[in-house]
Amino acid sequence: MKTYIGVDLGGTSVRVAHVNEQGEILYVSKSDSFAQSGPTVVLNNIIEMIKQVPNYLDASGIGVGIPGPVDTVRGVITLATNLKDFVDFPVAKTLSDALGLPVFMDNDANVAGLAEALVGAGKNEPIVYYITHSTGIGGALVVNGKVISGKSGYAGEIANIKVCDSDEVINHLVPGAVENEASGTALARRAKESIDPTVESAIDFFKLVEANNEQALALIDDMAYKFAVMMASIAHVVDPHVFVLGGGVTSVSHLYLDKVKAYYKQMVHPGMADVKIVLAKLEEPGIVGAAMLSTSYGL
Amino acid sequence: MKTYIGVDLGGTSVRVAHVNEQGEILYVSKSDSFAQSGPTVVLNNIIEMIKQVPNYLDASGIGVGIPGPVDTVRGVITLATNLKDFVDFPVAKTLSDALGLPVFMDNDANVAGLAEALVGAGKNEPIVYYITHSTGIGGALVVNGKVISGKSGYAGEIANIKVCDSDEVINHLVPGAVENEASGTALARRAKESIDPTVESAIDFFKLVEANNEQALALIDDMAYKFAVMMASIAHVVDPHVFVLGGGVTSVSHLYLDKVKAYYKQMVHPGMADVKIVLAKLEEPGIVGAAMLSTSYGL
Repeated sequence: MKTYIGVDLGGTSVRVAHVNEQGEILYVSKSDSFAQSGPTVVLNNIIEMIKQVPNYLDASGIGVGIPGPVDTVRGVITLATNLKDFVDFPVAKTLSDALGLPVFMDNDANVAGLAEALVGAGKNEPIVYYITHSTGIGGALVVNGKVISGKSGYAGEIANIKVCDSDEVINHLVPGAVENEASGTALARRAKESIDPTVESAIDFFKLVEANNEQALALIDDMAYKFAVMMASIAHVVDPHVFVLGGGVTSVSHLYLDKVKAYYKQMVHPGMADVKIVLAKLEEPGIVGAAMLSTSYGL
Repeated sequence: MKTYIGVDLGGTSVRVAHVNEQGEILYVSKSDSFAQSGPTVVLNNIIEMIKQVPNYLDASGIGVGIPGPVDTVRGVITLATNLKDFVDFPVAKTLSDALGLPVFMDNDANVAGLAEALVGAGKNEPIVYYITHSTGIGGALVVNGKVISGKSGYAGEIANIKVCDSDEVINHLVPGAVENEASGTALARRAKESIDPTVESAIDFFKLVEANNEQALALIDDMAYKFAVMMASIAHVVDPHVFVLGGGVTSVSHLYLDKVKAYYKQMVHPGMADVKIVLAKLEEPGIVGAAMLSTSYGL
């Protein structure tokens, strides 16, 4: 059975795993990512971690999941992230030269979506759209088992889809961007501003919803509506066979998912209303998807 | 050189062509489509037209472009159009059984987009997003020379993307749908309502713009903004290498295209702002794209 090496690189930690073609994790290790020490230190650490993986040279390829848009052809990060000095650094080439295996890169939402498409909740579906709903919002389009990353890795940067007429500039995103309206971070901010100044997190807000606080119920309804606007926009572009929803916010999906589905159906053509909308089911989509990235390139 | 048969089926007329793999039209014929006489009459006419094509059996396959969403796997239309009784009728199977060639179907915007991607303004670009801006608005996603039609053919039904907070129900589309804000039909309606009750067409409206009528200038600016909202939504889903814009409204693109580009850049990440936005260049994308549909299936 073919095996692959996966690297899940984040701002705090990095994990390396050996995964087989069924998505089973055979080996995993974890370390500080040294993200603020620059790419040479970060990558030398990863190279040493991979060399510690038993039989790593048996793997067909190495895949790296990274926070932020990736130019998958050049194998570089294209937008500043929490990895210092990484923009345009030749990550894939550096790893490949040191380890003698082909190396592929993509952003963390894309690799998580790939894992769910290949061996998770989207298994056997031709077109899978994966959405991570967490502190931020990200997406991944997987067609026939391959991630579509776009010209410069911005496919799936759905956080920046405009879902309302707001003029308020909150950060680098467009006014009315779904991430500033419907992410976990946005819910905490909006609840703190409009409901209770002691709210410090999305979890605090969800407690208000569970206590049937009227303003909190109105806010989660508004969130569900705007999330559905985003999903409908995505559906009119790619008409997926299934939407797979992952990320921390989905742990309280009982508070809002039925509302999202109802609003979604109001906003699409009748023939699109029966799309499957399911929760992600893998425990480790990031590391499994990174490993399986090589399969998108025929390995 | 390989050749293909293309059928461009509309509510009024139908055309049949023999096209080579460079997109050159070797032969074309045209007839009434008999759209209101039901699928048996319509398809028997097409079968006879194809049998008149010299050497039609040398073609590698037949492609049919149809107005409306198509289930490309089953080869049927999935939404009522101006073709009477066609929904769920086995169009591809009927033609294939009668003619002994493989038959593929897709909607007219998708085949036009395919033609522009293969031999038109998007040639040699990996990800092409084609938009037809006419009485209506349609789109097509072409990745590595293949159309992505979606689960039930609704990929590219971008007319229904919500671009503003409007609550006004105008037709079957969602309130605030881009087609009701920015299409040729929408411009005529909006100009008639808000500027001059004698406006009867988009052409009348464009004359007001060219005469520097202040309200007309404000309306075309609003159209450009909403068109850009739609394009930005598309870009955050698929990050194309090029947007190709076709359709009748683009004949006056000098009145608004620079505005569209400027608004678009304000709504996307800096790394996406350099996307190519170009005008379509084929004279006959519908019939050429229909013919070349077979190439999406390896023929």
